[in-house]
Amino acid sequence: MSSSPNGLTPYPIVQAPMAGGASCPPLAAAVCEAGGLGFLAGGYKTADGMYQEIKRLRALTRRPFGVNLFMPQTGYVDPAEIETYRGQLAGEANWYEVSLAEEDIIGTSDDGYEAKLAILVEDPVPVVSFTFGCPPAAVCARLREAGTYTVVTVTSVEEARAAQAAGADAVCVQGVEAGGHQGTHRDDPEIDGTAGVGLLVLVARVREAVGLPIIAAGGLMRGAQVAAVLAAGAEAAQLGTAFLACPESGAHPLHKKALTNPLFPHTELTRAFSGRPARGLVNRFMREHGPYAPAAYPQVHHLTSGLRKAAAAAGDPQGMALWAGQGHRLARALPAGELMEVLAAELAEAQSALKVLQMRRAS
Amino acid sequence: MSSSPNGLTPYPIVQAPMAGGASCPPLAAAVCEAGGLGFLAGGYKTADGMYQEIKRLRALTRRPFGVNLFMPQTGYVDPAEIETYRGQLAGEANWYEVSLAEEDIIGTSDDGYEAKLAILVEDPVPVVSFTFGCPPAAVCARLREAGTYTVVTVTSVEEARAAQAAGADAVCVQGVEAGGHQGTHRDDPEIDGTAGVGLLVLVARVREAVGLPIIAAGGLMRGAQVAAVLAAGAEAAQLGTAFLACPESGAHPLHKKALTNPLFPHTELTRAFSGRPARGLVNRFMREHGPYAPAAYPQVHHLTSGLRKAAAAAGDPQGMALWAGQGHRLARALPAGELMEVLAAELAEAQSALKVLQMRRAS
Repeated sequence: MSSSPNGLTPYPIVQAPMAGGASCPPLAAAVCEAGGLGFLAGGYKTADGMYQEIKRLRALTRRPFGVNLFMPQTGYVDPAEIETYRGQLAGEANWYEVSLAEEDIIGTSDDGYEAKLAILVEDPVPVVSFTFGCPPAAVCARLREAGTYTVVTVTSVEEARAAQAAGADAVCVQGVEAGGHQGTHRDDPEIDGTAGVGLLVLVARVREAVGLPIIAAGGLMRGAQVAAVLAAGAEAAQLGTAFLACPESGAHPLHKKALTNPLFPHTELTRAFSGRPARGLVNRFMREHGPYAPAAYPQVHHLTSGLRKAAAAAGDPQGMALWAGQGHRLARALPAGELMEVLAAELAEAQSALKVLQMRRAS
Repeated sequence: MSSSPNGLTPYPIVQAPMAGGASCPPLAAAVCEAGGLGFLAGGYKTADGMYQEIKRLRALTRRPFGVNLFMPQTGYVDPAEIETYRGQLAGEANWYEVSLAEEDIIGTSDDGYEAKLAILVEDPVPVVSFTFGCPPAAVCARLREAGTYTVVTVTSVEEARAAQAAGADAVCVQGVEAGGHQGTHRDDPEIDGTAGVGLLVLVARVREAVGLPIIAAGGLMRGAQVAAVLAAGAEAAQLGTAFLACPESGAHPLHKKALTNPLFPHTELTRAFSGRPARGLVNRFMREHGPYAPAAYPQVHHLTSGLRKAAAAAGDPQGMALWAGQGHRLARALPAGELMEVLAAELAEAQSALKVLQMRRAS
């Protein structure tokens, strides 16, 4: 049996590392056991919290899996912008009866990266992927020496070139369709068109610009779409929103419900919740605060954390971050293992159909 | 030999009907002769101008071809908004030494639709496609009786359902990646996320919502991308920007040059030139006027017509409408017939690779 990516799994399907609670050991284990590559989210956790999840996942499956890390953010953030946004959120704080984080959130930008990396070098996992930046070549080399396959998330040809120069084993090419955060290496609102390219265009461009294997991500919900990105030249497809509605996913029940509910017909990219462009179902919070939210990640993430928790506790989806890709209406609330079987069958069907088409054309 | 779409052509490749000069009989003829479906643009022409092009194309090829029509615009346009925009363009008019259209441009919204339709019923062509709206069922029926295959451009599931209800033979599913105008049926800036869905998501959704054959459009530049949309369930791929740089294309030489020049790295959707969202290479005019251009099509198109012509005459690409899809950097300045051969070879290669992959997986 051939396999992918990198000969690791029977099926070319990767479960996206959805930070913030959706990804968890039971979901990753179910995907792994069904022949895909399950993923844990290192982001938004302590290093020890990440390590505990790795241990729990290892107890659930002996198959290969991945861990995602957020790169430290090095851009300058103006404290005045945070304070302005804090003022603009005062009405939210009042409504949800929480106080916005008062501690110094300016210095909270590294997400425990070094400590997490040390754990992953000390006790290696099969795959490590990076988001929000490109690790230095020394980091890719250390992980490779440890036997780990490295993947860098990219949203442009320039970022793919950086990943190749750093010695990554593969790139995760993320189209504008993707739910949650765009993995753009540097969030610069001044750059026209940043993070706005459709998946099929990006795969075609990255494929010609760098020689690395491509994992394609963004809006993929059906096996026929997986077949499509493979035909375009990707080695595997990464699906996030497709797994979000699974019973194993740690997403909030209202988040799962909203994915296919007509009350939430659209998604948009917004900085409202975290300070970095992320795609979610359009709700009141996004409409009201998206237009002026500053490019200040992860400070805005910490600033709005209490609000989001309070909205979730109150059962109010209009104040939660309902991350979702553009294909959200196609979500299926199946157990992850069953969903993997359906995806594999759809993939095989699409590939057979294409084969028949080709044979007819040749005859 | 199997064929598509609708058994019309040997290859599942449609040349997009690029209104405004790029599409012309020599380009369409070259595509038809090479086994694709060439297209003429009915939009922005008089009915007689359209008919003359049809006759010229018939003299160049006996193969099937298509003609695209713009649907009449019925939305209310506030004359005050046009006048405000006219004032905002005063500096442009001064610089390019033209006067902005003074005549009554409010009543110029039907693009000669009825007269063009009458010609196409009287002297039928193989394929007619519609943009900016869905024709009534009676129109589809009249064209079908005349032996014509009808296609409606759609950018959402709702629009695809309307096309099916009207009795169209197929839908052209246009992703957000597409160059030029989004074919959205009603341009409403109030609707969140309008015209913003990536092609692979839209194909997957439309495929499950309606039973019509799908022609996929948006950002397609390579045969592997054509293979991808076929795998996703489309019957054919429609390419515009890919043919824009061909010597047969009527696009301005500066427009062709800009497609692959690093001075123009990005595209964006803008209402600046026409009043409707259209994707073009980001230039000075788009940056300066895009943010406040009104949703007033085609009035803004007529208002800026003189400016665009003067900029082109002055050799100034910063004042021209440089329509382009997100894949523009992959444009190849090959003769259209040669480009068709390359695309067909790339398509066959991608399909073979997918077949091998499938066989390996099954073994």
